[in-house]
Amino acid sequence: MKQTILKTLWLVALLMIVTTNISWADPLPSWNAGPAKNAIIEFVATVTNPDSPDFVPESERIAVFDNDGCLWSEQPMYFQAFFIFDRIKQLAPQHPEWTTKEPFASVLKGDMKSALSGGEHALIEMAMATHAGTTTEEFDKLVTDWIATARHPKTGRLYTEMVFQPMLEVLAYLRANGFKTFIVSGGGIEFMRVFSEKVYGIPPEQVIGSSIRTKFELREGKPVLVRLPELNFIDDREGKPVGINQHIGRRPIAAFGNSDGDLQMLQWTAAGDGKRLMVYIHHTDPEREWAYDRESSIGRLDKGLDEALADNWTVVDMKNDWKIIYPFEDN
Amino acid sequence: MKQTILKTLWLVALLMIVTTNISWADPLPSWNAGPAKNAIIEFVATVTNPDSPDFVPESERIAVFDNDGCLWSEQPMYFQAFFIFDRIKQLAPQHPEWTTKEPFASVLKGDMKSALSGGEHALIEMAMATHAGTTTEEFDKLVTDWIATARHPKTGRLYTEMVFQPMLEVLAYLRANGFKTFIVSGGGIEFMRVFSEKVYGIPPEQVIGSSIRTKFELREGKPVLVRLPELNFIDDREGKPVGINQHIGRRPIAAFGNSDGDLQMLQWTAAGDGKRLMVYIHHTDPEREWAYDRESSIGRLDKGLDEALADNWTVVDMKNDWKIIYPFEDN
Repeated sequence: MKQTILKTLWLVALLMIVTTNISWADPLPSWNAGPAKNAIIEFVATVTNPDSPDFVPESERIAVFDNDGCLWSEQPMYFQAFFIFDRIKQLAPQHPEWTTKEPFASVLKGDMKSALSGGEHALIEMAMATHAGTTTEEFDKLVTDWIATARHPKTGRLYTEMVFQPMLEVLAYLRANGFKTFIVSGGGIEFMRVFSEKVYGIPPEQVIGSSIRTKFELREGKPVLVRLPELNFIDDREGKPVGINQHIGRRPIAAFGNSDGDLQMLQWTAAGDGKRLMVYIHHTDPEREWAYDRESSIGRLDKGLDEALADNWTVVDMKNDWKIIYPFEDN
Repeated sequence: MKQTILKTLWLVALLMIVTTNISWADPLPSWNAGPAKNAIIEFVATVTNPDSPDFVPESERIAVFDNDGCLWSEQPMYFQAFFIFDRIKQLAPQHPEWTTKEPFASVLKGDMKSALSGGEHALIEMAMATHAGTTTEEFDKLVTDWIATARHPKTGRLYTEMVFQPMLEVLAYLRANGFKTFIVSGGGIEFMRVFSEKVYGIPPEQVIGSSIRTKFELREGKPVLVRLPELNFIDDREGKPVGINQHIGRRPIAAFGNSDGDLQMLQWTAAGDGKRLMVYIHHTDPEREWAYDRESSIGRLDKGLDEALADNWTVVDMKNDWKIIYPFEDN
């Protein structure tokens, strides 16, 4: 009997060591100590504490993340734009008119700056020309093949290697605390879904993005969804709360962005009741990543920065808050 | 030492009893033995068996369900139509023109048959007039109040009491086996989301339905989403695979419907690789529920029934397959 009691006591002690270790472990090891790291950890501790007045039940723990510039880099231009350019080169033999028609002509000459000088309109035109005309399954395969092999012009890395290690830790930390994590990006929904689960642990049904229309068809008796060159939804700026409402149907309690395109998403999140977490990633590290904000054409952060400072949202200083940027630095 | 071994053996035996009991328990107690019940159980056993060539990893276990006539009743008309009619009566003082304008005039006279004689077009016109003009939060409250008090004209029950007990068991059984369950309905997405979690255990982010557009606005500095009288999406027929692709981004492996409006969803599900489950609920019980199929204006099941029989999909005969229809019968 005494043996049994001793054994039980030993098991209890072991269990205490194990559980205590879990709560001692740093959930965000790539983050330097500081107000940003503190704000995230304090938020999670509060909303998951059943004794707190700010406790949030699991089903309502919704966190949303922009993708470009928030979960992975976005310079010298959105990574999806490189996919568009590669598709234009691939499709050019079927489009002899592109050699003289802008913005396609500039892309074929390798002059990306001119190609993008038409702004959003030009980008949408190129996206339509390269993202439509296939079935959803064919498009999935195009992206799968591209993302597995295409490399970033500056780092020479696969694009999926250029994700932010500190943000991967935030995603995992939130999920370990009962959160559902969603991507809410201006990027193409079917582009991101190809790699979001493998790279971020975010399943396709938790990815919200811009989209073109699709049409159901029976081809020789087999149903397919055909991608049409018609805009369905632009998930940017005022579109982000609309997309969140359409896909999630409830208001997030935490939102992470990095540009003015995320401002309305952060405002929408902030306007709910109870404790909220609004985070802006500020690109401040020209050595390890890029430094840009108010004057940048890609990922401009101007009004958003003002509002973050005025409303006491959390602003992450990449240079000082992040020990490493990319997972490959850890080797 | 001998004592410890005996104790361990006893614990192992206890564990075996407990786990065996779990697999012995009937997961679908309101279903009579028969081919429909067998098909569901055999499907789940196969796709969750890691040794089966048809094993499906958890993240891909997606099951979709129509709502009207599949998870709850839909006679003498879609339950949401009763909400629309009640809203028309409520809003009538602000719309004197409705006393002479169809289909509103018929609703105000209590002549629901004439009100619905204009078909889908009339229903959409009434939905627009009654579902727009509020913020999303105001609309949520309108539905919350209505669904808590409005009663079915024939049974006198709350509409949320008229859900199908056998289908609640299917939902719970699938979720216990690692499935994510989604509603894919022609009904209004924001209407269903108000009660889907409480009634079906399906969270708002797993509800797909028809929708009107919303617009982000700052009202006295507070962000709101305003519901506009413009169609966004009709989640019926060819729209169902489109809605599934838009919201879920992968193909379901199981689909449950009850009408021709669900046919394309079942075709889309069937066309994937590996083992699939396609189920039609056939309304065959005029005593306990309703009996209707090929000739009904609500929930017509004609082409779908032919295809189900030709392709060996599972057809549930409500009268013979279901021990009880509604949860309240169990008392």
